[in-house]
Amino acid sequence: MVRILSVEDIKRIVAKEGLQAILQQLLDQQLADFKRWNDFSKSSRHATHGHNGVIELMPIHDRKYYALKYASDHQDNPSKNQFTVIAQGILSDIETGAPLLISEMSLLTALRTGALSALASQLLANPNPTIMALIGTGAQAEFQILAHHLLLGINRFQCFDTDPEALEKCCNNLQNYEIDIIPCKSITQALDQANIITTMTSTNQKHILFDVEQVHAGVHINALGADTIGKTELDPHLLTL
Amino acid sequence: MVRILSVEDIKRIVAKEGLQAILQQLLDQQLADFKRWNDFSKSSRHATHGHNGVIELMPIHDRKYYALKYASDHQDNPSKNQFTVIAQGILSDIETGAPLLISEMSLLTALRTGALSALASQLLANPNPTIMALIGTGAQAEFQILAHHLLLGINRFQCFDTDPEALEKCCNNLQNYEIDIIPCKSITQALDQANIITTMTSTNQKHILFDVEQVHAGVHINALGADTIGKTELDPHLLTL
Repeated sequence: MVRILSVEDIKRIVAKEGLQAILQQLLDQQLADFKRWNDFSKSSRHATHGHNGVIELMPIHDRKYYALKYASDHQDNPSKNQFTVIAQGILSDIETGAPLLISEMSLLTALRTGALSALASQLLANPNPTIMALIGTGAQAEFQILAHHLLLGINRFQCFDTDPEALEKCCNNLQNYEIDIIPCKSITQALDQANIITTMTSTNQKHILFDVEQVHAGVHINALGADTIGKTELDPHLLTL
Repeated sequence: MVRILSVEDIKRIVAKEGLQAILQQLLDQQLADFKRWNDFSKSSRHATHGHNGVIELMPIHDRKYYALKYASDHQDNPSKNQFTVIAQGILSDIETGAPLLISEMSLLTALRTGALSALASQLLANPNPTIMALIGTGAQAEFQILAHHLLLGINRFQCFDTDPEALEKCCNNLQNYEIDIIPCKSITQALDQANIITTMTSTNQKHILFDVEQVHAGVHINALGADTIGKTELDPHLLTL
């Protein structure tokens, strides 16, 4: 029988296990999967571009399981009271093709992305980071903050967004946590003394969010926003430093 | 909210509407969609080949809807008490990417394929066919027989399969209908005086099921079995007659 998980089911699981435990499990699982990278048969995403968004299919399999993520990305969805990223997943037995699990993956993707960034920070940033800068404070920013707070112990987050409402919403949603969320008036202010910079802007344009000179030695950058052709966030010279 | 349909839901809908009405609706809908062929953005299937089967993704969209069918084909599934073809579908709003419907599609695919063959026979075969030959009597054969009986009024089906059990099962499952199902000892016997030939063998090999000379003028052929590279059912010379 196929098991079906809704957003409500995922919320219940997170509430029962605790957010920290769930994020830690996601981090551990992704690390374990990266360690057996060659066990997976990978292929390019299948992308369908509509006039206001994209729907992507992401299939992958190992010797036991076949997994498919269906993920859409529509920047104007929040104005229609929908998530920007809406995702569903199918997990199947590779031996029979029979689906074992169909799950919502909008919330799961947000959690997993937060945990993956925390994993990257854990492996690549200097030890004991204390300040993180966030550029772009849409829904994913909250998961980035929670993952870096709960898994890496970071307590200060300097946030910037071109949209004051998005910035305010992010700060308000996290006010129950014992962390300092600092709304900043500029990217330069957000970057000040940050050990980790996380960029997650969403516009479909080629941006360079900050100058190479603003990145000090030892700073770690997680750049999440430029996820398709035609989008950039960073100066390519950063890669040649 | 996403609506989710299980196999049991589909069975209930078929029972409520009646098999003939459902098949007719599927035929009508497919005809309507063929008539607006250029409204659809089509792309190649994404195929994942395991060592004993294949899992395919079939995305398509028009200006309003995005549809994805996940379909697996594992020839040894019946020995594991599973369908050979297992399918699931997602129907989404192209404007937001939000799934509207997630449905089982194993039964739906079987019904749709039966209705599509009946549509092809209706449009392409000579009028008033009375005898259909079926080569390969797996699960799809029953849907072919029912669709051609209920939608085109054919009452005589001459069936052949290399597996006597598959042949017997097909005949037994349809004994409640007022139709003549004739189990045949050879393909030649099955073809005798048939107006329509339907082939749906499943082995992954290049077969030529019958000689060009065995196909009389005016006979219509629906060849369903050779659905991927490396499989054939017909002599290519049939296309140059």
